[in-house]
Amino acid sequence: MTDVQQAFAEIKRGAEEILLEDELLAKLKTGKPLKIKVGFDPTAPDLHLGHTVLINKMRQFQQLGHEVIFLIGDFTGMIGDPTGKNVTRKPLTEADVLANAETYKEQVFKILDPAKTRVEFNSTWMEKLGSAGMLKLASRQTVARMMERDDFKKRFKEGQSIAIHEFMYPLVQGWDSVALESDVELGGTDQKFNLLMGRELQKGEGQRPQTVLMMPLLEGLDGVQKMSKSLGNYIGITDSPNDMFGKIMSISDVLMWRYYDLLSFKPIAEIEGFKTKISEGANPRDIKIELAKELIERFHSSDAATAAHQEFINRFQKGAMPDEIDEKSVTAEGGEIAIANLLKDAGLVASTSEAMRMIKQGAVKIDGEKVNDNKLQCKSGTVAVYQVGKRKFAKVTLT
Amino acid sequence: MTDVQQAFAEIKRGAEEILLEDELLAKLKTGKPLKIKVGFDPTAPDLHLGHTVLINKMRQFQQLGHEVIFLIGDFTGMIGDPTGKNVTRKPLTEADVLANAETYKEQVFKILDPAKTRVEFNSTWMEKLGSAGMLKLASRQTVARMMERDDFKKRFKEGQSIAIHEFMYPLVQGWDSVALESDVELGGTDQKFNLLMGRELQKGEGQRPQTVLMMPLLEGLDGVQKMSKSLGNYIGITDSPNDMFGKIMSISDVLMWRYYDLLSFKPIAEIEGFKTKISEGANPRDIKIELAKELIERFHSSDAATAAHQEFINRFQKGAMPDEIDEKSVTAEGGEIAIANLLKDAGLVASTSEAMRMIKQGAVKIDGEKVNDNKLQCKSGTVAVYQVGKRKFAKVTLT
Repeated sequence: MTDVQQAFAEIKRGAEEILLEDELLAKLKTGKPLKIKVGFDPTAPDLHLGHTVLINKMRQFQQLGHEVIFLIGDFTGMIGDPTGKNVTRKPLTEADVLANAETYKEQVFKILDPAKTRVEFNSTWMEKLGSAGMLKLASRQTVARMMERDDFKKRFKEGQSIAIHEFMYPLVQGWDSVALESDVELGGTDQKFNLLMGRELQKGEGQRPQTVLMMPLLEGLDGVQKMSKSLGNYIGITDSPNDMFGKIMSISDVLMWRYYDLLSFKPIAEIEGFKTKISEGANPRDIKIELAKELIERFHSSDAATAAHQEFINRFQKGAMPDEIDEKSVTAEGGEIAIANLLKDAGLVASTSEAMRMIKQGAVKIDGEKVNDNKLQCKSGTVAVYQVGKRKFAKVTLT
Repeated sequence: MTDVQQAFAEIKRGAEEILLEDELLAKLKTGKPLKIKVGFDPTAPDLHLGHTVLINKMRQFQQLGHEVIFLIGDFTGMIGDPTGKNVTRKPLTEADVLANAETYKEQVFKILDPAKTRVEFNSTWMEKLGSAGMLKLASRQTVARMMERDDFKKRFKEGQSIAIHEFMYPLVQGWDSVALESDVELGGTDQKFNLLMGRELQKGEGQRPQTVLMMPLLEGLDGVQKMSKSLGNYIGITDSPNDMFGKIMSISDVLMWRYYDLLSFKPIAEIEGFKTKISEGANPRDIKIELAKELIERFHSSDAATAAHQEFINRFQKGAMPDEIDEKSVTAEGGEIAIANLLKDAGLVASTSEAMRMIKQGAVKIDGEKVNDNKLQCKSGTVAVYQVGKRKFAKVTLT
């Protein structure tokens, strides 16, 4: 493999779709550093591993010598949701945006090289556009083209209202590509329509259109739903080392390989080596420990990874925790369930009164941590190991 | 009748629709001067009587003591048609706009009182709005609401493209009402959707919504199609006194009353008096002469009106022109017909060669003026009296 082919293989790793692959290869072959654009919401960032899938891909481009642009979409953020329908989307002040940008940097620079990352705010060029410029931008697309976007089509069909400015958001995102003259834009698969808008507007301005590289949405701890704060199935990048360790250890073996693909920086060859080991009899748990340590090292430190591993050993492996733990699924009606009911439904206790007694005795643990509150409500979407006494364990997925 | 009721009756004269009448009456009753907004395209103005229907209504408000705002929509005019599809709608420069405004003033101040007319350009507030303001404005309406406009609905259904900025134009017009805090907006019936947008946006800003007063579109000389340059059935306000006289004399008696209603400044009672006279045997031609003189006096002078009348008498009435002239309709294939063919089709000559001979002898006249060019092409949409020799006359409508 030539260097370019090797780079191309790395870039393709984990990608869901590239438009167009040949075009990207041709750009890589020029040997010139490419401008890699990635847009982020300016709302208060509190990243989880799902967000890092994209950031990891940015890091890859960075390591291959390309110019990575971390674009903060403050122009639309400072407008918020002008319809007032969405209370969670209040307009941000300039101070908010700058504060959020700092928080962003603090988090993403655990993955990206600050010296090689260009941070941009799209208000820089969007505000200069002015009223007339916005009108001209609006003229660049038709209503019919916008209606091709799945969610617009669906809402229009179902009689749900679409405010006209919503048609402008894809155009603004596309215009960012024109302003930056980006060669590649990275985004989630759910961004396809908006990403392609950049290509169209660039063509209209006589620029070489950006290649679009879409990364998949990462599944959460349950292995089914996409990782999200609201579903509770996430690992935050500011989670404590012990939490990270426990959460990673809770995922299924299948999901572990997915996470290796999208979250690990280990070369493909090394991951293939792990698979061989398991087929030769190694315990998948030990491979999972490797992943947990890599991630804790990234977001905390090498020492923190070692300590979390040791803590995990102290809690579970030195004790009576068996290698195989029963997996259970418990339904939390309305999104929450009381700890006593959960333990009963998982078959760890015979009754809720037994559960209350065991909690009082300090004999109930969640991921190795003692439960003190017998009124604790557990949220659906979480996965954890519940322990009652010395012998009873269950890995419970709360749905 | 009280003063207010009298004013209300005057305002309603000729109006096609008022939204809402009660509201307008209430506004008049406050006794305060109302802000009357009327928007005009900033493209090179060359007004015909059709345009003056609206300007006459502005004059009426002016005479009733209200503040009339002559609004030039230069903001959108300076953008032109950004899709580039419409070659006739090139972006105007600021110099173009100012030059056109001067031409406008020169023309409309033949009707309006310059001292009582406030001239505004909507770029004043639209440019200040900025990109963010435009986005907010776009958020004020939904796609579904825009699709209620007849032409958008039709084009979307038929798969004809609608550029997104076209959705912005009604919003810009509506925002003008907010910026001006207009109490009444006048417009043609074809502007209903856009006029109502002003009401909606004003309500959204907590303003008392403007009343919308729609004037009908004036029929052209043929009495059927709306008066328009491209149809050729118009009387331009810069037409020569003799042309104006001839054209007015060519209209039907029915159309004459329509013109009295929409173009004359004579009180309703006086017009009723004319009708009585005719029922008592007066010649409608003489009533038409009154209208012709009033209009020439308005756009030229009292002397010019007298002279045009005298010229008309010299040409037609002193000669052999009969009181009753045959009315004919001739079809001009492709929009034009050669004079010889026209004379033959109208039955004024037996053959085109006879026509050519008569022209050569100087025996052919159009509206009393000798035809010298035997290759003259006559345009469809026109109405004129054609004369061959001393005895043969026909009033020909070219379709």
